[in-house]
Amino acid sequence: MSHYAEFLSAAADCLGSKGFTRDADVMEPWLTDWRGRFTGKALGMASPASVEEVSAFVRLCADYDIPIVPQGGNSGMSGGATPDRSGKAIILSLRRMNAITRFDEQAREVTCQAGVILQTLHEAAEEKQLRFPLTLGGKGSATIGGLISTNAGGTQVLRHGSMRAQVLGLQAVLADGSVFDTLTPLKKDNRGFDLKQLLIGSEGTLGIVTAATLRLIPAVADRAVLWAGVASILDARKLFLHANKVAGEALEGFEVLPRHSLEAVLDYAPEARAPLQDNHEWHCLIELTADAATAERLQDLAMNLLETAFEEGLVEDATIAANETQAEDFWAIREDISPAERAIGPAVQHDISVPVSKMAAFVAEAVPLVEKRYPGTVGVAFGHLGDGNVHYHVLAPQGAEPGAWERTKGKEISAFVYKLVTDWGGSISAEHGIGQLKIHELDHLADPVSLKMMRAVKQALDPEQHLNPGKLVWLADKG
Amino acid sequence: MSHYAEFLSAAADCLGSKGFTRDADVMEPWLTDWRGRFTGKALGMASPASVEEVSAFVRLCADYDIPIVPQGGNSGMSGGATPDRSGKAIILSLRRMNAITRFDEQAREVTCQAGVILQTLHEAAEEKQLRFPLTLGGKGSATIGGLISTNAGGTQVLRHGSMRAQVLGLQAVLADGSVFDTLTPLKKDNRGFDLKQLLIGSEGTLGIVTAATLRLIPAVADRAVLWAGVASILDARKLFLHANKVAGEALEGFEVLPRHSLEAVLDYAPEARAPLQDNHEWHCLIELTADAATAERLQDLAMNLLETAFEEGLVEDATIAANETQAEDFWAIREDISPAERAIGPAVQHDISVPVSKMAAFVAEAVPLVEKRYPGTVGVAFGHLGDGNVHYHVLAPQGAEPGAWERTKGKEISAFVYKLVTDWGGSISAEHGIGQLKIHELDHLADPVSLKMMRAVKQALDPEQHLNPGKLVWLADKG
Repeated sequence: MSHYAEFLSAAADCLGSKGFTRDADVMEPWLTDWRGRFTGKALGMASPASVEEVSAFVRLCADYDIPIVPQGGNSGMSGGATPDRSGKAIILSLRRMNAITRFDEQAREVTCQAGVILQTLHEAAEEKQLRFPLTLGGKGSATIGGLISTNAGGTQVLRHGSMRAQVLGLQAVLADGSVFDTLTPLKKDNRGFDLKQLLIGSEGTLGIVTAATLRLIPAVADRAVLWAGVASILDARKLFLHANKVAGEALEGFEVLPRHSLEAVLDYAPEARAPLQDNHEWHCLIELTADAATAERLQDLAMNLLETAFEEGLVEDATIAANETQAEDFWAIREDISPAERAIGPAVQHDISVPVSKMAAFVAEAVPLVEKRYPGTVGVAFGHLGDGNVHYHVLAPQGAEPGAWERTKGKEISAFVYKLVTDWGGSISAEHGIGQLKIHELDHLADPVSLKMMRAVKQALDPEQHLNPGKLVWLADKG
Repeated sequence: MSHYAEFLSAAADCLGSKGFTRDADVMEPWLTDWRGRFTGKALGMASPASVEEVSAFVRLCADYDIPIVPQGGNSGMSGGATPDRSGKAIILSLRRMNAITRFDEQAREVTCQAGVILQTLHEAAEEKQLRFPLTLGGKGSATIGGLISTNAGGTQVLRHGSMRAQVLGLQAVLADGSVFDTLTPLKKDNRGFDLKQLLIGSEGTLGIVTAATLRLIPAVADRAVLWAGVASILDARKLFLHANKVAGEALEGFEVLPRHSLEAVLDYAPEARAPLQDNHEWHCLIELTADAATAERLQDLAMNLLETAFEEGLVEDATIAANETQAEDFWAIREDISPAERAIGPAVQHDISVPVSKMAAFVAEAVPLVEKRYPGTVGVAFGHLGDGNVHYHVLAPQGAEPGAWERTKGKEISAFVYKLVTDWGGSISAEHGIGQLKIHELDHLADPVSLKMMRAVKQALDPEQHLNPGKLVWLADKG
């Protein structure tokens, strides 16, 4: 038997018929990332049912020198879960491992296998009057393992932090099949290096996340959603600082969008209504929340925030959502920006960050440079002002050919944007990760010391490059 | 010139007379850790004045194969900053680098060089109505660099997290002299591995912390300090859960102490007064705090907590400090426990943690096992119930010989305690780190997978073992 035939036979033995397939139809949906940017081939798809099976299978792959591409919900933004075109790698799907194995209401902890879907976790927490404080658009498909491997963000990072901050304990299978297990969390533990955080956000290149213990917080007992119109992004920044001061820890979200984005949504979504009557250059969507212990004063706090903002001349106009329906409507506008802007025509998108205190200045100063340099383009920046995280779309000039424009001019514009953001001390990936989408850019633009450290760590923990090769970081000799 | 003579001459050239000494009197205080457990020798002591000097000096040490022991305030608890007895290592003191280089009130960020003393940072923050939310007994000597390298804890971890959670950006010199620099913090940055967290808590074995950007929070506008007597540690746990529920994010500290510790303090500190009239087996010290945004309701919240705790039969007796003086007095009792227990006679101390939900059971069940196995000893457990962190002292039987008892019987007892805590899924070092004090224990008791990962990472980033050798983790071939 050939090397591959031997491996395939051993893989089928290891995982059984439910756990291993080479059926082209079954594999097909998992060979392309959901945005359709990357399509690869795979030698097969493994779907182990337990950490023991993952461990045995990874050991088998190590023995046969077979690369592994771990995959959760396949809803990542950077092609991190899509195999390359060689067809030599195995997709390792964690989707069958979808049990919530422990729920400790009193300690506010939940232990999930990697394949648990975010929405499922939200619902399980809500049933117990608790809440998992991270959410994002892909919650119906994104899995806990994928969210951890990409250190996912979302709209609640301002107050609650990204995925990194939610993980109390972790279980992962390393390149040699051994199992790193800290699922029983210790709040304080100073026994050396923070291996848990090293694995989180490593995009499956250092280990395959198989389970995690996550923190929960008390359910939201009340919320207030405000919409404000301001004259400039710099005024939005002032309003943010004011909100931070007045609302303190109740401030859960602070999103900004330009006039262009609001108008795009109003065109795109027939049911969308403008929250304010007049036109404003910039809009702020602000959410305050409270749990049962602090709910009593939340509406007063929101009113106070609004009144003082008017008094201090920080807003042109503003309103508080009158009820939950209106609150949902406000948020729907924010969530529709991406599809609405995309519906206008070809564009290149950038998920970038700069130091929080510089974001307003970056949008005001740096973004127009792009429009000037590439005449006819329109720059639209929106997102998480409180996190310094800008979703920055550059729309193609009218008449540009979809597909072709992105591949040529769009690529050039992105390179310019990434250079610009790096010069501002920012990041070319605020929340979407590197994957295969930005591995070239990271290789060129990353701080050489950080890159050298990453390569050394990758070399130390996965010397044969079996774990998600071609993602995030190359070793020096393959770069 | 000999190898060493050449190195010493180059070192003096590199750092100048202020920056390099071999004077025995000058070095003497820095060769013994402050608890007097470890004394070493050094080839010399370097005191660079800038990150450039640290970098150049580390490169020089690499060239001459000279090991480096980084040192801050020399107030660590595990001998992590004390050189070994070979006299071949250089102490690298960061104390001259003691400037606060940037203070951004609006962004609530401060950038400090490694040698800034914690107390100095507290005062700088207070001047601007802000607060650095980590404090501990050694604040008058502990430096930011040392606190970061040991991931220091303290009494505010419950709400604000350990040092790890305070560091927004980091600068460190690596083994080859290159400078890792993320001092300009990005709230969101998904460009690969979390190198910052890898360096934090690595006890100078992966890099030498030279500066950091730290988060600040609004100053405390009001606080309420409560003292409660309860019948058992299990009741203390119930009260903790209740306090958590009622006070939510206002709950900043929850400490427990047994009757033995209170009585020891009353004997030891002439000015100490018992907060409650009757005797109780266990005592809880609870602190609620609020910033300006939430101060208005804090005293009501504290009163509500107290009343409902009485109603639900959670306390035998309880009181709220009537004023700041009384609040300070309550905390003084907590802070005097260690010296008071030490004054009784020989003892071995353990800084251990178990899962938060198991701490009460551990103290109730596991701790008496030690007294039973070692007749005449008295076990005293106190500390951070909300963090699962127990300071666990075992007092020698009456008449035991100081010094000799700790070295013989005490050592045996500690081994038993560490085995016990490991069996409970806990940590042999909750907040004090490993250093040279527990390197043997970690080598024996750590999860083999974690240990293997740590060795691989150490090998990758400091292959010649120049950075703080003999601390935290040995490489396999030296262990």
